[in-house]
Amino acid sequence: MKRLTFLLFTGLMGFSAQAQTVHSPGNKLTLSFQLSPAGEPTYQLRLGGRAVLKPSRLGMLLQGLPALDQGLAVARVDSSQHDDTWTPVWGEVQQIRNRYKELAVTLQQATGNNRQLVVRFRLYDDGLGFRYEFPQQPNLQYFTVQEEKTEFNLPANHKAFWIPGDYDSNEYTYSTTRLSEVNSASIEPIQLKSDPKRIQTPLMLKSDDGLYVNIHEAALVNYPAMMLDVDTQRFGLRSHLVPSATGAAAYLQAPEHTPWRTIIVSNKAPEVLASKLILNLNEPTKFPTTDWIRPQKFVGVWWEMHVNKASWNYADTSNIKLSGTDWSKLKPNGHHGANTANVKRYIAFAAKHGLQSVLVEGWNVGWEDWANNWKEEVFDFVTPYPDFNVQELQQYAASKGVKLMMHHETSSSVTNYERRQEAAYRFMKQYGYDAVKTGYVGRIIPRGEHHDGQWMVNHYNRTAQKTGENQLMVDMHESVRPTGLHRTYPNWLASEAARGNEFNAWSSGNPPEHETILPFTRLMGGPMDYTPGIFQIKLESWNPQRNQGKQVHTTLAKQLALYVTLYSPVQMAADLPEAYEQRPDAFQFIKDVAVDWDDTRILAAEPGDYLTTARKAKGTEEWYVGSITDENARTQTITLDFLTPGTTYEATIYADGKGASWDKNPQAYQIRRQKVNSKTTLKLQLAPGGGAAISLKPVRK
Amino acid sequence: MKRLTFLLFTGLMGFSAQAQTVHSPGNKLTLSFQLSPAGEPTYQLRLGGRAVLKPSRLGMLLQGLPALDQGLAVARVDSSQHDDTWTPVWGEVQQIRNRYKELAVTLQQATGNNRQLVVRFRLYDDGLGFRYEFPQQPNLQYFTVQEEKTEFNLPANHKAFWIPGDYDSNEYTYSTTRLSEVNSASIEPIQLKSDPKRIQTPLMLKSDDGLYVNIHEAALVNYPAMMLDVDTQRFGLRSHLVPSATGAAAYLQAPEHTPWRTIIVSNKAPEVLASKLILNLNEPTKFPTTDWIRPQKFVGVWWEMHVNKASWNYADTSNIKLSGTDWSKLKPNGHHGANTANVKRYIAFAAKHGLQSVLVEGWNVGWEDWANNWKEEVFDFVTPYPDFNVQELQQYAASKGVKLMMHHETSSSVTNYERRQEAAYRFMKQYGYDAVKTGYVGRIIPRGEHHDGQWMVNHYNRTAQKTGENQLMVDMHESVRPTGLHRTYPNWLASEAARGNEFNAWSSGNPPEHETILPFTRLMGGPMDYTPGIFQIKLESWNPQRNQGKQVHTTLAKQLALYVTLYSPVQMAADLPEAYEQRPDAFQFIKDVAVDWDDTRILAAEPGDYLTTARKAKGTEEWYVGSITDENARTQTITLDFLTPGTTYEATIYADGKGASWDKNPQAYQIRRQKVNSKTTLKLQLAPGGGAAISLKPVRK
Repeated sequence: MKRLTFLLFTGLMGFSAQAQTVHSPGNKLTLSFQLSPAGEPTYQLRLGGRAVLKPSRLGMLLQGLPALDQGLAVARVDSSQHDDTWTPVWGEVQQIRNRYKELAVTLQQATGNNRQLVVRFRLYDDGLGFRYEFPQQPNLQYFTVQEEKTEFNLPANHKAFWIPGDYDSNEYTYSTTRLSEVNSASIEPIQLKSDPKRIQTPLMLKSDDGLYVNIHEAALVNYPAMMLDVDTQRFGLRSHLVPSATGAAAYLQAPEHTPWRTIIVSNKAPEVLASKLILNLNEPTKFPTTDWIRPQKFVGVWWEMHVNKASWNYADTSNIKLSGTDWSKLKPNGHHGANTANVKRYIAFAAKHGLQSVLVEGWNVGWEDWANNWKEEVFDFVTPYPDFNVQELQQYAASKGVKLMMHHETSSSVTNYERRQEAAYRFMKQYGYDAVKTGYVGRIIPRGEHHDGQWMVNHYNRTAQKTGENQLMVDMHESVRPTGLHRTYPNWLASEAARGNEFNAWSSGNPPEHETILPFTRLMGGPMDYTPGIFQIKLESWNPQRNQGKQVHTTLAKQLALYVTLYSPVQMAADLPEAYEQRPDAFQFIKDVAVDWDDTRILAAEPGDYLTTARKAKGTEEWYVGSITDENARTQTITLDFLTPGTTYEATIYADGKGASWDKNPQAYQIRRQKVNSKTTLKLQLAPGGGAAISLKPVRK
Repeated sequence: MKRLTFLLFTGLMGFSAQAQTVHSPGNKLTLSFQLSPAGEPTYQLRLGGRAVLKPSRLGMLLQGLPALDQGLAVARVDSSQHDDTWTPVWGEVQQIRNRYKELAVTLQQATGNNRQLVVRFRLYDDGLGFRYEFPQQPNLQYFTVQEEKTEFNLPANHKAFWIPGDYDSNEYTYSTTRLSEVNSASIEPIQLKSDPKRIQTPLMLKSDDGLYVNIHEAALVNYPAMMLDVDTQRFGLRSHLVPSATGAAAYLQAPEHTPWRTIIVSNKAPEVLASKLILNLNEPTKFPTTDWIRPQKFVGVWWEMHVNKASWNYADTSNIKLSGTDWSKLKPNGHHGANTANVKRYIAFAAKHGLQSVLVEGWNVGWEDWANNWKEEVFDFVTPYPDFNVQELQQYAASKGVKLMMHHETSSSVTNYERRQEAAYRFMKQYGYDAVKTGYVGRIIPRGEHHDGQWMVNHYNRTAQKTGENQLMVDMHESVRPTGLHRTYPNWLASEAARGNEFNAWSSGNPPEHETILPFTRLMGGPMDYTPGIFQIKLESWNPQRNQGKQVHTTLAKQLALYVTLYSPVQMAADLPEAYEQRPDAFQFIKDVAVDWDDTRILAAEPGDYLTTARKAKGTEEWYVGSITDENARTQTITLDFLTPGTTYEATIYADGKGASWDKNPQAYQIRRQKVNSKTTLKLQLAPGGGAAISLKPVRK
């Protein structure tokens, strides 16, 4: 690792009218900062000769204080450059270079008691990050951010891949429209109706002349998530912060800073996916050790509930109260998934196939009426149902070399969870659990707070910290979308925070394009627990009555490809053991594929259309390739020039079968093997909604 | 103990038009319940021939459902009577009789999906309690109470002793006006401005014809506190529930019930004070043992901060952050009260004088800028300041046979406290603490919630439960006012929840009448930690600059009397040791007076004017008398007929000195001794703002 930081320039006062201009290290991007005559800060961004962002306003609205968006003068300018390389605990590549030029402009408001606000820019060759900083100062100690006034003014009416600005959910399919056509009025809200022109980040944009622009944020800490309000006339975006229960956005104490606002830009779509800008803008971990953190694959007592073969709840009663209920007296409904025998079946299956863990949902009391009641006391996280034998399962799992993964559904009663977290983690340690999947379904308690507001952001981060202190890994569902904090909390393996595979089980589902958009949007911030690997595509076979017409909107081969195209260090083999046992040849790919990587190549990508990714498994010479398409059949030709020259590999190609298509014939697949090397070109035929997965293993001589 | 409950009458349907009438066990009070032709439930209350309450409406407004206040029919009527006697863990009397007649009316709303609401009345000879019950039923499981529509319609323009309906504080002086004149518009809010005609309970009323009526509630559990909106034209009161952060009042799940609404009534003021109706309406404790609960007197590192001789904070810096601060590097301000040497001084003092405990405030880090910043992370409750040696003090206190009392100021960041409560109680057990004084200064976090709302009510009760499970006693400051829950949680020794003695140190103070009103208002619900016993009445002597003109608004003798007139099982000797050491003769009363009693006699009482109380110390033949007056000098003549006939007692009378008055000459007192018996009459001369205290000890032969 090399580290190189030096101060290029420091000045004092008298800059008000001057523009500050910075070129990225490789001279690809140019950032300009300027104050208007009225002292309004603005910035703009160019890629070569093309405008990425037109002049866009910056500013902060504080409660009870003059707005920090005009009447400002430049008090100081600091410039520096930085170049080093760091090693992630786990990830898509072995090392990450962090090379940027920095410009920090200290703004001062004479009419506002000389309050100061710093705007710090970090300009990379693949994008820009900037944040606001409130330095320690006499006239700004405790303050409340009412709103942030950051603009991202696009030069034209770009194509946008967007979801509505629901403060409490991001589990939407993506709409693809021009900026001028953004309007979510007709979209059924998942949780909270959004302003029709308010959308979420990561926002993927594409210009007519082929510029790919991604807008998001990095290191969301002690601050609400940023939504974007679209000016459909002028193609401008303006920040809107998710409000707290009081309506204000953030309660802060100086010195403090906002998350980084990120703009990743390239004229090549794969470069957007390869960008490490967001990770670079996060802080390194402070955990003293990380060797207890293990990327992993898991199965779980989970999909059988989604396909109505089993239930989370033990009894079919309702109107249960957590305290005062004698759970042993409830009448079991006979199809409770998390029973000891069934969990043992999953443990045996995981052990047999070399999968590390077994998730069990519905193990703990409270599922009889857990959701949608805005009720505080739902779960206690330590009391198993009568048919779930914690000790017996601990012993059995240990004897099989498999870990059980804990499940903590909070039903968004977060105050209740926080009261019980310490005891819950003690329980986990006592019974040998080292990872927990958390859930936040429903409306937040404290009532009036939102999933994406400051209070909840602090909760998620505190949970990552607390689990980390207990050497526990965590996978958060229904949380705020990630912003690269897995660099700081490498035990935070993944989040859901988007529309996962589960929606295919009980809703109109995820359209075939969905997984080609996710990497350009939700995954820009971090890994997703999408739960791929569904082999039984048509769900009627599990429960003809209740699953009528329900299906996964991909082919089986595409489900395999997702293990490569949707990056995550924790991947579920989401289908039932019996589904895999019917197709052991296809299941072999899931058994083989890695979850931690030394290298990643985005071979082809277009948001909403297709994606082909190759990754080199951590510490081995094996490569895995995933290729997926939207609803259109497509031929993807890939050259294996990433392989080590001179080495022969056996490629196992899991491809869509003849006549396969996501809707008519999704389970048709074919597996072929061939010897390849770095000069080989493969032609992959992707069915409508289809894909292909390839394992590449060096041939031992 | 005898227990006698039998069902007098049970009927079904067809009662709609009939009035239900109940007479109290001793035939003193008469309750009538009736439905109007529109199906509106009403009740009224009479004492003999006099109306206590005119017909008053009952009802519940539920969010999104038809209002349960009209269109109701009587579906069922249940009547019963009850008589038993129980023994409190500690209290004013040894045994309490619980004798009432009960009427439970089940109301059903045909137009509202046959939803049912039960109104349960318990009629005592000294008052009425009633509550709403939501039975288990198919069409009402989870529901939200928007408002409760309970009326208390007084027959005339009574005199009222009231404080404004601040959702977050009850630390007000009392206004004494006619109901028609209730208006708090000109009263400076302590925390949150009240609607001008909204007032708090316990509300004390007096009619022109000498009826004393007290309105409050009992067993406030999982529900917000009830405020009262005054109809100044018609002398009606209507319930208003303290709202949650969302504006709704209570989130409930059937079966559930509200607290009891209580009306205590008598034509003798002392009988109001002697009523045990509120305690009777609370549930017995479920704690398996209570022998670890000890009524106690304590001193504390506390008043020296109020009189500006010492500080809670260790350093005079501000803008501290809890995490990341190296407290050992802060520059001490040199007058931090909670330093090891000073605490040892208090321990030695307590040991010397037989006081059980020493409270220490300001022992833990975070006081540099703890209040009024609506900041979540202020205290961690386990990190002492560098000059407070926990281990050394534990050993020293143990060697002296004295307990240290823990202090947990939460600064109302309750989410933060709840996260840390478990660790904080572990810390207490580890270092030998068995009691904790909690504090809730400032605005509540979760932001938008109120001190007196449902969420906080649940917090206080949960804290009582949790401390109890850890065999810890608790004394809550700035909490909701008590409602008799110390029967259920006998470890909940006291609350502040009113304007305590401390206001004399730094505000316009408490007028001399204040302590004659408190027993009729705040204390109706339970004990108060008022912190009496200030000997150094004029506070300038401690700090001439900062305490200019500040004083306690009583005489010294009245401070002694308060130990008897203001009942609490936990009483502070609030002044500094040096103040007591200057007047060991007067201090002897504080050393002698009990904090737990076998009997109590209210000898004379008039709210706002005077109060004389005699109490028999638990398990002894000693009696203690306190007599206090308002700003007027007064002669109180008392007959000691409560003493055991034939026994001679030595009375030590701590009286106001010649020429004493609260403002001009507050520290003049005289102590005289005389032999007395059950036939003795004593004439007590009370100075303006004065009082007298008497100890009565049997003369050993």
